[in-house]
Amino acid sequence: RIMRPDDANVVGNVHGGTILKMIEEAGAIISTRHCNSQGGEPCVAALARVERTDFLSPMCIGEVANVSAEITYTSRHSVEVQVNVMSENILTGAKKVTNKATLWYVPLSLKNVNKVLEVPPIQYARKEQEDEGKKRYEEQKLDRLETKQRNGDVIIPVINPEPHTVGYSQSSLIHLVGPSDCTLLGFVHGGVTMKLMDEVAGIVAARHCKTNIVTASVDAINFHEKIKKGSVITISGRMTFTSNKSMEIEVFVDADPFVDEPRERYRAVSAFFTYVSLSKEGKPLPVPQLLTETEDEKRRFEEGKGRYLQTKAKRQAQMQQAAQP
Amino acid sequence: RIMRPDDANVVGNVHGGTILKMIEEAGAIISTRHCNSQGGEPCVAALARVERTDFLSPMCIGEVANVSAEITYTSRHSVEVQVNVMSENILTGAKKVTNKATLWYVPLSLKNVNKVLEVPPIQYARKEQEDEGKKRYEEQKLDRLETKQRNGDVIIPVINPEPHTVGYSQSSLIHLVGPSDCTLLGFVHGGVTMKLMDEVAGIVAARHCKTNIVTASVDAINFHEKIKKGSVITISGRMTFTSNKSMEIEVFVDADPFVDEPRERYRAVSAFFTYVSLSKEGKPLPVPQLLTETEDEKRRFEEGKGRYLQTKAKRQAQMQQAAQP
Amino acid sequence: RIMRPDDANVVGNVHGGTILKMIEEAGAIISTRHCNSQGGEPCVAALARVERTDFLSPMCIGEVANVSAEITYTSRHSVEVQVNVMSENILTGAKKVTNKATLWYVPLSLKNVNKVLEVPPIQYARKEQEDEGKKRYEEQKLDRLETKQRNGDVIIPVINPEPHTVGYSQSSLIHLVGPSDCTLLGFVHGGVTMKLMDEVAGIVAARHCKTNIVTASVDAINFHEKIKKGSVITISGRMTFTSNKSMEIEVFVDADPFVDEPRERYRAVSAFFTYVSLSKEGKPLPVPQLLTETEDEKRRFEEGKGRYLQTKAKRQAQMQQAAQP
Repeated sequence: RIMRPDDANVVGNVHGGTILKMIEEAGAIISTRHCNSQGGEPCVAALARVERTDFLSPMCIGEVANVSAEITYTSRHSVEVQVNVMSENILTGAKKVTNKATLWYVPLSLKNVNKVLEVPPIQYARKEQEDEGKKRYEEQKLDRLETKQRNGDVIIPVINPEPHTVGYSQSSLIHLVGPSDCTLLGFVHGGVTMKLMDEVAGIVAARHCKTNIVTASVDAINFHEKIKKGSVITISGRMTFTSNKSMEIEVFVDADPFVDEPRERYRAVSAFFTYVSLSKEGKPLPVPQLLTETEDEKRRFEEGKGRYLQTKAKRQAQMQQAAQP
Repeated sequence: RIMRPDDANVVGNVHGGTILKMIEEAGAIISTRHCNSQGGEPCVAALARVERTDFLSPMCIGEVANVSAEITYTSRHSVEVQVNVMSENILTGAKKVTNKATLWYVPLSLKNVNKVLEVPPIQYARKEQEDEGKKRYEEQKLDRLETKQRNGDVIIPVINPEPHTVGYSQSSLIHLVGPSDCTLLGFVHGGVTMKLMDEVAGIVAARHCKTNIVTASVDAINFHEKIKKGSVITISGRMTFTSNKSMEIEVFVDADPFVDEPRERYRAVSAFFTYVSLSKEGKPLPVPQLLTETEDEKRRFEEGKGRYLQTKAKRQAQMQQAAQP
Repeated sequence: RIMRPDDANVVGNVHGGTILKMIEEAGAIISTRHCNSQGGEPCVAALARVERTDFLSPMCIGEVANVSAEITYTSRHSVEVQVNVMSENILTGAKKVTNKATLWYVPLSLKNVNKVLEVPPIQYARKEQEDEGKKRYEEQKLDRLETKQRNGDVIIPVINPEPHTVGYSQSSLIHLVGPSDCTLLGFVHGGVTMKLMDEVAGIVAARHCKTNIVTASVDAINFHEKIKKGSVITISGRMTFTSNKSMEIEVFVDADPFVDEPRERYRAVSAFFTYVSLSKEGKPLPVPQLLTETEDEKRRFEEGKGRYLQTKAKRQAQMQQAAQP
């Protein structure tokens, strides 16, 4: 579809969250279709996880987003979908790859939302494809277990914070879940949640560096808990790390099912977003260093640095590999 | 994309206007891309006309709309696009044709919106395709000239109208044109206008018969005049004709460019919409007869009857043709 | 959240209605949460009244709206919420108070929408806070009874009106209530209604003075009647008074529950909005004088003048008080 002014920031770059929402919708369609293809109990595919996603080039107002999705692996209870987004300038004909994302879905029964159904297996062109898929499946399963730990943290507001401290840029947003935010099962679309997360992370980044910012990447996101229609969700973000030209922001989503539910507020999702600051010509700008004050902030900064260095090393390894004959 | 509650009426049928908007967006993308494909002066394709469109089967919340578009004819200054919409129930896999629509676009220069550019010719697989396209082109050109006449009419409100009279159900809506309603040229997308027209026509139909109603067809619509960002548009609808099971509603769109423009209010578009009333099981219900009072109302009723009988005759002819071996 | 192009008029000032909608959403969340905090029958807090609200400074596209809400008084069956809106320019860090609003909510049972539940009492830091709250409670109760009278009036359209007469700028809008407009109880959010009211009032003001206009204040609004999903609402506005630099517009909301309801059209809400006209530099411009023709128009003009002078006197008294040591 054509990108509109509301999809973009003031200089015309489309929000990463808008793109994540389109990606997730495409993934939900293809995996729901696949999981119902053998007849049997009708189901809706729910987003369980999005792998780390890089935004390769910014998309602009007036460009057309071409989204294509393909199922690349199926386990007994989950579907891996690869989604590619190309931006197309229909005036010049220029096309660019904006994103490649990998998403995992789980089929939930329409009649009983707590029942996970079986996934019809797909055919692989080559045996290696299945083996590689299985490896990815095992890796993400491990990673999902790990992130379950980190969920107790809260963001406490700071009065009169100093510029460039964590408290200075941290932000939160509340949203009342409406009917159009939800799937047929009455739970929030993963894409809607990611769009709100990107919105908060973008505000944190802009508050910190006071310039035009764009989403550079999103770390793997695990959707542990469903969010029901009528809930109030609080999305909070705080900066955890800055390199010379990038900022890492941690985002939490907490759900309050406070009507007709005996349940307490709970942490539904959390993730790391990386932003860069761009000049009007689209060049990366230096970013003010994050000032850490407490022990926790210093620890999180070091952890963020670890993730940053790991990603950098991985990318260099890939580039070297690509450069080899 | 997946149809959401906001796209539909209370019983879950997707509004005809939502579908028309998707059709127009697809048409605008493919024709803008085509008109810029030879380099030269950059342009945006603006909707000039939509041919009569039938809604063959209702689409529901949760279904996926598959929209495909193809360029079927080019004249020197216009492009004919054929758009097909299929609804797909991704749970059962069932697909149904919802619409087939034919749209005409004209390329306007990005630098000078009043300059119509030349359209690169397409290649035809067979000579007859070109001849048939040329025939359609000539027919629509003629029809566009004719409808230009009818444009002076206004809808005058009635105080305390009787049920089932024209004054009883007539309705109007004002809308302030926002940035997301507009193309890169700063003019309202044809699809946005059609969605608003369907909204008003639907309210007229529902006020008349007080039951669940759906769009059955839209007569050819000509877009004579562009509408600029920041304008206020008034969309008015009145019932012109009822058969046993259908209602015809005439809709006018008037634009008021009231900020920083010396221009008067003008008629931008007008069209006829046909609605049917459906029971909860999806069966057509009888419709209360329209009570005409003035001479003008009686004349419009007869004209509507003429259109109704003509369409009916055409459809029967097509069915007989289709039944022949 | 970040203000987007669609939230604002052509010169970039955010619509008052967008702000009122955010305020009401925050109020609904905090009061629904409070009313469900003691367990017992689940309920949704419905907006009963908004006190007079001044827009202290315009908000612009790209700014972030910070909305904070606090419960300041509870009676047996109602909750008073104070909401503050700050606009923050995240590029410069500048913050300004945009609004302070006071809203009253009533908890309605989720199972039986006509049953008003009891509100858990709040703790006051000082006895005077409770006494002042009680005084505000009694005052608004009185005012709500009074406004019930004024509700019979209708806006009758005028053919070919002269510029600057009441008939020249009066406007009305119809809206079909969709799922996203509604609470869990299936009734329109008060904030949605206020946004539509501001939209109509803004069009009346712009038609009158043909310049850029912004909402300056909204008089107290009482929500006497709920509006159900699937209703058609007609929002009508007419100018009642002009001072040198401001315009007062009266807005009515009428609901038509026309599908599967035996009920007649009824007046749901009415209110006065005040607008000012701003130059491109943000300076107030003089406003053309309203031309009154009928006796009713002259009477309403005088009443509007009364409200204008009263507000002016109150503001001067407050300023003097604030200036004292």
